[in-house]
Amino acid sequence: MLKVLVTGGGGMIGQKLAAHLGVHGLNGSSVLQVTLADIGFPDDGAPGIETVANVAETGTMSRLAAGCPDVIFHLASVVSGEAEQDYAKGWDTNMSPMWELLEALRERHEASGGEYVPRVVFTSSIAVFGGPFPDRIGDGFLTAPQTSYGAQKAVCELMLGDASRKGWVDGISIRLPTVCVRPGKPNRAASGFFSGIIREPLNGEEAVLPVEDTVRHWVSSPRAAVGFLLHAANLDTSRLEGRRSLNMPGISCTVAEQIEALGRAAGADAVRLVRREPDPEIMKIVSTWPRDFEPTRAIKLGFRAERDFDQIIRIYLEDDYVIR
Amino acid sequence: MLKVLVTGGGGMIGQKLAAHLGVHGLNGSSVLQVTLADIGFPDDGAPGIETVANVAETGTMSRLAAGCPDVIFHLASVVSGEAEQDYAKGWDTNMSPMWELLEALRERHEASGGEYVPRVVFTSSIAVFGGPFPDRIGDGFLTAPQTSYGAQKAVCELMLGDASRKGWVDGISIRLPTVCVRPGKPNRAASGFFSGIIREPLNGEEAVLPVEDTVRHWVSSPRAAVGFLLHAANLDTSRLEGRRSLNMPGISCTVAEQIEALGRAAGADAVRLVRREPDPEIMKIVSTWPRDFEPTRAIKLGFRAERDFDQIIRIYLEDDYVIR
Repeated sequence: MLKVLVTGGGGMIGQKLAAHLGVHGLNGSSVLQVTLADIGFPDDGAPGIETVANVAETGTMSRLAAGCPDVIFHLASVVSGEAEQDYAKGWDTNMSPMWELLEALRERHEASGGEYVPRVVFTSSIAVFGGPFPDRIGDGFLTAPQTSYGAQKAVCELMLGDASRKGWVDGISIRLPTVCVRPGKPNRAASGFFSGIIREPLNGEEAVLPVEDTVRHWVSSPRAAVGFLLHAANLDTSRLEGRRSLNMPGISCTVAEQIEALGRAAGADAVRLVRREPDPEIMKIVSTWPRDFEPTRAIKLGFRAERDFDQIIRIYLEDDYVIR
Repeated sequence: MLKVLVTGGGGMIGQKLAAHLGVHGLNGSSVLQVTLADIGFPDDGAPGIETVANVAETGTMSRLAAGCPDVIFHLASVVSGEAEQDYAKGWDTNMSPMWELLEALRERHEASGGEYVPRVVFTSSIAVFGGPFPDRIGDGFLTAPQTSYGAQKAVCELMLGDASRKGWVDGISIRLPTVCVRPGKPNRAASGFFSGIIREPLNGEEAVLPVEDTVRHWVSSPRAAVGFLLHAANLDTSRLEGRRSLNMPGISCTVAEQIEALGRAAGADAVRLVRREPDPEIMKIVSTWPRDFEPTRAIKLGFRAERDFDQIIRIYLEDDYVIR
C-alpha cells in the first residue's frame, strides 16, 4: 500500500489532487493511504485522512513524517500577499517546515538503515525569479526573488536539493505558474485577480482588476497543476541530473488577452463586469513577477500545460463552474 | 565611533581584515570598536575585542547583535570539505546563524523605531554554482549548488536579500573566488591544495596535489578578498538594484598554469616538490566547482582582483611569506 502525505491538503490544489488520487491512484498503485494535513478542510472534501495540523508549529512536520509516507506532496504555504504583509508568519510557514520535514525524514532514513527514501514533491513558484527579466526566462536564469514568498520558496528548493543529493529523500521542486482560474472565493494571494476577472464575470458578478490591462503573466490551470504534481511524483529523478528545480510550462498572456478570451467564452456582458481599480500595493508585487518562460527541460521531461487561455477557461467551466 | 563586528574574526580573512581596520579604519572613520567573534584566536592576533563564541550555538548571534554594530562582516563558516562530511554541523554553522542574526537585527531595528539599519557583508562563495557551466559564468546564471556548503551559502544570500529588501538591514553577499595563497597550515577546505601547492614548495616542503593539472579554477588573493569586504562595507547599495549577491572578480587559471607561475617565482626545485596523489573525494567536489566568470556587475561597482597568478604569488610573498 502506497502511503501518500499531502500538506496543504485542504487547499484548492490539495483537494483536487486528493480527488484525483481517490479515483486514479498514484504511480500505478490503486491502493493508497492518503493523509491530508491542513489547518482546515472544506465540508464534503475529497477522500483522505483529514489531519488538522499547522505546519508552522514546531513538531508538526516531524509528526507527519513519522508515518514514513512513500510520497509527500508539500503544498502547505502562506500565499504571496500574506507573506509580504506578515514577514515572520511567511518564513515560519513557508520555510521552517521544509527544514523540519527534511530533518525528520533524515532520521527516518537512518532508522531504516538507508532503505526509506521518500519522494518529496514541493510546489515552488515562479516567484523565485525577480527582474530585470529577459523576454523569455530560460532554465539557466538566476533566482533573485523580489518578494518574501519567492525567497522562501527558493530557500526550500535549495534545502530539498541538498537533502536529495545526499540521498535520504528523492525530491523535486516544481515552479508553478500562477494557477488560474481558481474556483471558489478569492484568497489573499496578490495574484488572485487573475482568477477573479474570469470567475466572477462568468457568474454575472463584478470583478476588480487592480493592475493595467497590459500586464503579462505566466499561467496554467488547476488541472495542469495537479498534472504537474502527479508527473513529478512518478518521474525518474536521475533525469534531473542534479538540478531538482524545474520551471513548469504555462501560457504567457496579457490581462487584455485574458479578457478577450472571456468575451469569446461569455460575451460582452461578462467583459463589462471587469472593473478597473488600480491597487498600488498589488501593482508593485505583480510588477516583480516574470512574464514569459522557455521551460525546455520540463517539456522534455514530459510536463504539459494548456495551449491557450481559451482552453484554460474551458477547463474551469468543465471542472469547477458552479452556477451561484 | 563606528562599531564593527566580525564573525569568524579569528580566521585567516578575519584576522587580515582586523589588521587592516586597526591601521586604516573603515568607511572614512578611524575611531572604531572592532569585535572579533570566533571559537578561537591566534596568539598575538590582530587588534580587536576577542569574543570566544560559537555561532552555531543558539543565542550566540543574538548576543553579538545586541551591541547594535554599525557594520557586520559575517565570515564565520564551516569549510566546504567539513560541511560535506558533517551535514548537520554544516547547516547548523553555515545557515542557522544567518537566520538568527537577521531576526536579532530586526528586533534591534524595531526597538530603535526604524533608525538602526546595519550594513551586513556576507562572505558567500562561488560554490553556490553547480554544473553544467557555460565557458564563462555571467551575472545572470542560476545557483544550482552541488555541495552542502554551496547550498548553505545560497540560502543565506536569499535570507539576507529579503531582509535587506524589507529594510532592517542593508546587506550584500560577496561570492568569493577560492582564496589563494592562504598562509599557515592547511584547513579542511577541499580547495586547500590550491594554496598548498604554492605555499609548501616556497618553503622547500613537499605539497600534495590531489587533482589533475588540467583542473581550471577561479581564484583571488587574501589581499583581494579583504579588499572586497572593505569595498562592500562602503558601497552605495542602491546601485545593486535589488540584486544583493555579487560574483567577485578573480583569475581563471589551471593548476598547470599555477605551477608554471611557481616555477617563475621559485625555480624548478620548487616545482619538483609538487607531488601528484589523486584523491577521488576531493576530485569529486572540485569537479562541481565553476572555472571561469564574467563578473561584469562587480567590476562596474568597483571591486578589483589580481591581473594574473604571478601577482597572486607576489602578494603572498609580500604579505604572508615566513621562512620556516
